[in-house]
Amino acid sequence: MTLTQLQDQSEEALKDRLAALKADYEQYRTKKLKLDMSRGKPSPEQLELSMPMLDVLSSKSDMKAENGVDTRNYGQLDGIPEAKRFFADLLEVETDEVIVGGNSSLNLMHDTIMRGMVFGFPESSAPWSKQGKIKFICPVPGYDRHFAICELFGIEMIQVAINEEGPDMEEVERLVREDDSIKGMWCVPKYSNPSGATYSDETVERLVSMETKANDFRLFWDDAYTVHHLTDEHDPLKNVLAAAKEAGQPNRPIIFASTSKVTFPGSGVSVIAASRDNINHFLKLMSSQTIGFDKINQLQHVRFFTEVEPLDAHMKKHAKLIKPKFELVLSTLEEKLGGKGIATWSKPNGGYFISLDIVDGAARKTVTLAKEVGVTLTGAGAAFPYGIDPRDRNIRIAPTFPSVDELKEALNVLCTCVEIASIEQLLATK
Amino acid sequence: MTLTQLQDQSEEALKDRLAALKADYEQYRTKKLKLDMSRGKPSPEQLELSMPMLDVLSSKSDMKAENGVDTRNYGQLDGIPEAKRFFADLLEVETDEVIVGGNSSLNLMHDTIMRGMVFGFPESSAPWSKQGKIKFICPVPGYDRHFAICELFGIEMIQVAINEEGPDMEEVERLVREDDSIKGMWCVPKYSNPSGATYSDETVERLVSMETKANDFRLFWDDAYTVHHLTDEHDPLKNVLAAAKEAGQPNRPIIFASTSKVTFPGSGVSVIAASRDNINHFLKLMSSQTIGFDKINQLQHVRFFTEVEPLDAHMKKHAKLIKPKFELVLSTLEEKLGGKGIATWSKPNGGYFISLDIVDGAARKTVTLAKEVGVTLTGAGAAFPYGIDPRDRNIRIAPTFPSVDELKEALNVLCTCVEIASIEQLLATK
Repeated sequence: MTLTQLQDQSEEALKDRLAALKADYEQYRTKKLKLDMSRGKPSPEQLELSMPMLDVLSSKSDMKAENGVDTRNYGQLDGIPEAKRFFADLLEVETDEVIVGGNSSLNLMHDTIMRGMVFGFPESSAPWSKQGKIKFICPVPGYDRHFAICELFGIEMIQVAINEEGPDMEEVERLVREDDSIKGMWCVPKYSNPSGATYSDETVERLVSMETKANDFRLFWDDAYTVHHLTDEHDPLKNVLAAAKEAGQPNRPIIFASTSKVTFPGSGVSVIAASRDNINHFLKLMSSQTIGFDKINQLQHVRFFTEVEPLDAHMKKHAKLIKPKFELVLSTLEEKLGGKGIATWSKPNGGYFISLDIVDGAARKTVTLAKEVGVTLTGAGAAFPYGIDPRDRNIRIAPTFPSVDELKEALNVLCTCVEIASIEQLLATK
Repeated sequence: MTLTQLQDQSEEALKDRLAALKADYEQYRTKKLKLDMSRGKPSPEQLELSMPMLDVLSSKSDMKAENGVDTRNYGQLDGIPEAKRFFADLLEVETDEVIVGGNSSLNLMHDTIMRGMVFGFPESSAPWSKQGKIKFICPVPGYDRHFAICELFGIEMIQVAINEEGPDMEEVERLVREDDSIKGMWCVPKYSNPSGATYSDETVERLVSMETKANDFRLFWDDAYTVHHLTDEHDPLKNVLAAAKEAGQPNRPIIFASTSKVTFPGSGVSVIAASRDNINHFLKLMSSQTIGFDKINQLQHVRFFTEVEPLDAHMKKHAKLIKPKFELVLSTLEEKLGGKGIATWSKPNGGYFISLDIVDGAARKTVTLAKEVGVTLTGAGAAFPYGIDPRDRNIRIAPTFPSVDELKEALNVLCTCVEIASIEQLLATK
């Protein structure tokens, strides 16, 4: 096999290659693999990094927050002061611009959209659900759980391509200028899920200053990977709330983040950051939902990161564990698929994913082939609204959870399946 | 002062008594008190009882649930198996009839009603919000935070009196038989907030078997005080889910509970229990809201109650701390207000409250008088929808949080204020 691009090869050569690949594939079948690259989950080794946090509090601990509030009892809906300050520093906002939540930022996002639908935002003429069809802009490929929330609430999703600078801003600006039913837009602005792209300063500026026909338009700014760098080269991200204030649109962005991939995915601390108007609006509505979130967990997190180890050092330990996995993915893709003209992939500086684009029409086939020999990938199309990739070409690779050995095996399977599916697609369209 | 009922006394005698009371009241003012009997919060001593739970997990712990799931990572939306079993045993339901949630059962209740409004229940012809005006039956006095949820979602509240057997069932049956816009009913079936009443077997049976015009009617069964006995005399409560199944209405009750007043109010574990149909309906909708609740906290709770101490023994320690406070309330009320014909009060076997009914029209005045000398009571009317007590006579006493000494002082103030307000009311209507 030379580096000749596959589509330039003769049908005979392709068939020979396909036969060889299928022989490899049958070998994998005999191995009875059980490998999972489907979700962006930290590995057990990463979880071990945060185990010392469980020693921070004990039966002998002072459980008072710095304002004297007993973290064990009811109250303090917006979070304990030291947790608010921790996240305010992290997100570069003021302490009264944050609400520290429970264990799930997805939960905060879901509830924020629910509130838009049921109650509206301060500027809304009526709840969104009473304003006819509601639409969101969804940069693709994107995060399947964002799209699931839209689907749940019957919000129509408009796809916009994402490139290395962020979403296609020409298209975004055109859409929101003309259509007042477009009320929101999903954004994973840094180390985007799954493309790894970080929005450029210009993209952020255009998003906060663009003219929107809806006066209650919101950016759902899921800053999930803000401290999740893979290398010392950190993608810079412009402060969206500061930029929005400067553009005279302070209420536009609603920022979400969490420590799910910093400490424990099931037991982290989430945060919502926004203008004071938004925060007060949320607090008023949330006060009927809960008396307060888990303050002991907030206290445990803050004491861990202030008394035990700094956040930066902690995130470097994560990077040390996952960087070799990302490197393995990139080198294997290059080795097995490089130069064949059937695949391109992202090379992110952070986050949890590598986005792989292959020959149009071959993604679903690839995922099915891999599944049949025991390698579970994220479902093809998952990164698109309604689970449908219009070109059926995108595969999301989540390399963090498996061990390096498992990952190696899974990648070999993946590359074999990609090539089989691609050649079959090429043969079918020849 | 004799035991002659106040309303039988002469105007002159009343005025003399009032002058004496006002002198006492001015004495309290000089003390610059700062006492709070407003909320049903455990005292710091009660919170200390659960501090050993913080030693259950450490950096050396095995963090796997019994099914092998790593509690630190994502997943297990319905809760870890041992937590499901713990709550299933507690509530006498099957393990697949429970979802173990986050730190707040109020949050589960809010979200369940939100889902009724936005999506409806399996039997609903349309989401509740698309079926015109929606109404709930609210036994009064009741829990203010229940009523706040109804108010938030624009649900009209129909008041029904609660007596020692539970709500007035004649009235409840009449209402739900005739009106298909009545979709739900709030119930605190055991040691009710604030009356302390426990629903009789007959009440439970009638609630689950009564004919309702709405086919998607639900009982919101807030079993908040199920293990919160004050003495060895436990009020029995009929198993509502079993009774509902027997009556052919398995989907009617939705049971909520939590460990908020067992371990830590800010950091307990909540649970929802219902028929499998309901549970599956909830899980489907919840899967867009969160990947899972805090499983480490679930693990910590279960290991504490199975490996460190049994729940019953733990609840007895709570009772030992709070029973003297309830006794102090009852003896003070008897001593200061007994035989005067101006007050009646509940004598609960469990829960967190004593409900005090005084002369019609005197409750708000009493609370204001107490507030002015530094004693914060639950707002008058708080136990009624929209915060309006039609007879302005009910005061909720929450004795658990203050120390015994503080409580003594606060009760003296309360009784003085009750008598002042009552006499002024009697004089005004003489």
